[in-house]
Amino acid sequence: MAEQKKMVEAITSMEEDFAKWYTDVVKKAELIDYSSVKGFMVFRPYGYAIWENIQKDLDARFKELGHENVYMPMLIPESLLQKEKDHVAGFAPEVAWVTHGGGTALSERLCIRPTSETLFCEHYKNVIQSYRDLPKLYNQWCSVVRWEKTTRPFLRNSEFLWQEGHTMHATPEEAKEETLRMLHCYADFYRESLAIPAVLGQKTEKEKFAGAEATYTIEPMMHNGVALQGGTSHYFGDGFTKAFGITFLDRDNQIKNPYQTSWGVSTRMIGAIIMCHGDDSGLVLPPRIAPVQLAILPIAMHKEGVLEKARELYDRLRKEFRVKLDDSDNSPGWKFSEYEMKGVPLRLELGPKDIANHQCVLVRRDNREKIFVPLDNLEQAVREALDSVHEGLCRRAEQNLAEKMHVAHTHEEFLDIAQNQPGFIKGMWCGDSACEDQLKEETGGVKSRCIPFEGDPVGDVCVCCGKPAKHLVVWGRQY
Amino acid sequence: MAEQKKMVEAITSMEEDFAKWYTDVVKKAELIDYSSVKGFMVFRPYGYAIWENIQKDLDARFKELGHENVYMPMLIPESLLQKEKDHVAGFAPEVAWVTHGGGTALSERLCIRPTSETLFCEHYKNVIQSYRDLPKLYNQWCSVVRWEKTTRPFLRNSEFLWQEGHTMHATPEEAKEETLRMLHCYADFYRESLAIPAVLGQKTEKEKFAGAEATYTIEPMMHNGVALQGGTSHYFGDGFTKAFGITFLDRDNQIKNPYQTSWGVSTRMIGAIIMCHGDDSGLVLPPRIAPVQLAILPIAMHKEGVLEKARELYDRLRKEFRVKLDDSDNSPGWKFSEYEMKGVPLRLELGPKDIANHQCVLVRRDNREKIFVPLDNLEQAVREALDSVHEGLCRRAEQNLAEKMHVAHTHEEFLDIAQNQPGFIKGMWCGDSACEDQLKEETGGVKSRCIPFEGDPVGDVCVCCGKPAKHLVVWGRQY
Repeated sequence: MAEQKKMVEAITSMEEDFAKWYTDVVKKAELIDYSSVKGFMVFRPYGYAIWENIQKDLDARFKELGHENVYMPMLIPESLLQKEKDHVAGFAPEVAWVTHGGGTALSERLCIRPTSETLFCEHYKNVIQSYRDLPKLYNQWCSVVRWEKTTRPFLRNSEFLWQEGHTMHATPEEAKEETLRMLHCYADFYRESLAIPAVLGQKTEKEKFAGAEATYTIEPMMHNGVALQGGTSHYFGDGFTKAFGITFLDRDNQIKNPYQTSWGVSTRMIGAIIMCHGDDSGLVLPPRIAPVQLAILPIAMHKEGVLEKARELYDRLRKEFRVKLDDSDNSPGWKFSEYEMKGVPLRLELGPKDIANHQCVLVRRDNREKIFVPLDNLEQAVREALDSVHEGLCRRAEQNLAEKMHVAHTHEEFLDIAQNQPGFIKGMWCGDSACEDQLKEETGGVKSRCIPFEGDPVGDVCVCCGKPAKHLVVWGRQY
Repeated sequence: MAEQKKMVEAITSMEEDFAKWYTDVVKKAELIDYSSVKGFMVFRPYGYAIWENIQKDLDARFKELGHENVYMPMLIPESLLQKEKDHVAGFAPEVAWVTHGGGTALSERLCIRPTSETLFCEHYKNVIQSYRDLPKLYNQWCSVVRWEKTTRPFLRNSEFLWQEGHTMHATPEEAKEETLRMLHCYADFYRESLAIPAVLGQKTEKEKFAGAEATYTIEPMMHNGVALQGGTSHYFGDGFTKAFGITFLDRDNQIKNPYQTSWGVSTRMIGAIIMCHGDDSGLVLPPRIAPVQLAILPIAMHKEGVLEKARELYDRLRKEFRVKLDDSDNSPGWKFSEYEMKGVPLRLELGPKDIANHQCVLVRRDNREKIFVPLDNLEQAVREALDSVHEGLCRRAEQNLAEKMHVAHTHEEFLDIAQNQPGFIKGMWCGDSACEDQLKEETGGVKSRCIPFEGDPVGDVCVCCGKPAKHLVVWGRQY
């Protein structure tokens, strides 16, 4: 039984069934386990370690920009959720309600937070009095619950882990600047730490967040041509602060309402990593968030000196890198497959011949390139190889994004691409949400992803109705 | 209005009203805010930063001992909670129930986790097959909900933040060893990082955790003579693993149930810090978990060169310490009070005279000692001063613990001490829980804290019934 477990089973290929490939990877790489409540999953050690590395990296970026962490209650009274009417309309249908506590029925039911705008507003009302109290730049790491009908690990869970920033500012200009600053903070993180490029832009009215004046988004492209909303940043104006009666005395001695933003990314990012970088051998992790950056695999371990040398290298490398030494009695072949499945960016092979030559072999996970490295210079070589893997992943993802960016000039062309070429479609839009509805229905799911910040118009007329166009829109199917 | 806010209001003195002093400190040091749901509180940035430092320190200790972090679902189906009968009897009365999700009534109600033994067992059943899979050493950082009637910030909240370790082992011996290892890990953390000494021991049958075979506890003593359960570690035997059908194939080819532990500490520790170290000027924070270890306060800021020098020192010190430079236009007197209220371990005063003498003044929060320090040697001096504050806090807390440790040889003596001398009472016990009940009732709340690991018997007969004694017990009132 124990021995049986030690075989790395093959996974479904991406070509054959992308959805099945995805769930195979998620399970075989030991990222998650299912629980008995649908949509609520167990983050296993390897999956959670990815999230810990993401958290650490993002948290440092937020703090560098002046943000402070707080923790708000998990439960929101129904009356509080209802204070901002667009917001409650958006979220009430998908929340979980607590109706009993301590053995008795509650006088008012409480929902588990689906997001915490209302809780932050309730608190901000208590702590903001003067312009001296602004800006308030708060962030929270927590789990939230949104009752989903169809669930999929990382991509759509009823409970997920995330961060939600909620900030208050004296002027609309400052708040808008913060909204965009945080969107770019996400984009930088995606590229610099996850090796994932993305399209940045503004959501249309129809697609914006419940209660926001404007929603900005970062949209990476998956391997199969489906987009994923990678992170959003919202500008609220003073809608919530008026509804909650949050005021401050400004420099000019006037009482005013502050202006608000919120922004969030979640464990869905792990889904993006899997679908952006993974291959038929399993997960491929970007080195900067990989729980194990380098696996040391001694070859012919029984030969004199091999294990000693492997341990010596382990002790050297762990000072700078996240390293695992696998000196188990599993075969080298098993180990190669196992660390490929787990997406470890580099493996280090070391056998008696290597030791005699005072060298070792580094093998890159992304392209399987072998690099022979003198042991003297090992740290430097590992550093460079990890950077190369990162760059390699970036380049491949950029190429995928470029290849899957199509242009439609006419309605016919749009429908043809939507049916035959997976990916984004650039197409002009008149600004009417009726056209968004029509295109979504005609294509069975292609929606406006965003009005991109970059990119020239590709025509003059709406790709749906033919009327004069107002915006270039990037369209696509989404997770 | 803005200016009014900038006064540090006096707080109630400890002597006058300890409970009021406590809530004053919690609010004036800006640790928490109340929310509209009773027992659910907002951790403000300063309060949450203490928790972040605690987390970082403990998490490193856990990982050093081989533990891995995971994340389990927030919700537990009623049927799952019921699988271990002592456990459900202990927790069912105090949980919050979710009955509706996504607009419809659920077929089975779900409780928000009050603790996660059942969830870990459900998962362990899926991932433990062989002795090779053991031990499993998992830990989780999360929030839990226990519906409390009387709530008090940090000490008794309906929602609190904590960590819960849950481990599985092949033998009872290994599991028992882990139970005690983690209790000692907590005790080391309390002393080395929180500067809080404590009594360690085993809970009596009556006081142990619902479903555990044995519960161990660490019990620090507060300033007012009331004890606090600072952390617990439980040995479960194979009770849960049998109830959940968790088995493994052992080396001897036999199918067996593994042995289990769990252990946890929570944000209640922040309550312990406040009540163990605080004084009539506010919070006193142990340097190793203080969000700000050192506040730089320039004196006569308008004088040439003062602010520049202060900034220069700030840039030097922030490389090694958590430093805040307060160059606001508030008066030095206001600043002194503010950083005392917030419990910042050291303040650094720097005025024109100091600069002329190429020195500055360090003032310790714990005893207000002033130390004149040459600027050349500043880092070393700060390092030493922070260590001195830590040692000073330890010594004071040890003295408090020793002074409040009383001994009762007779029933009469016990009742007299319980009424007149706040603190712990050492007294012999026959082992019958009826005596625990009687003493608690007679004294209005003095309970057995633990059977301590250290300490010689103080007599032969039970301090309640006079029958032959089995154990030395440390008794006391608790938060």
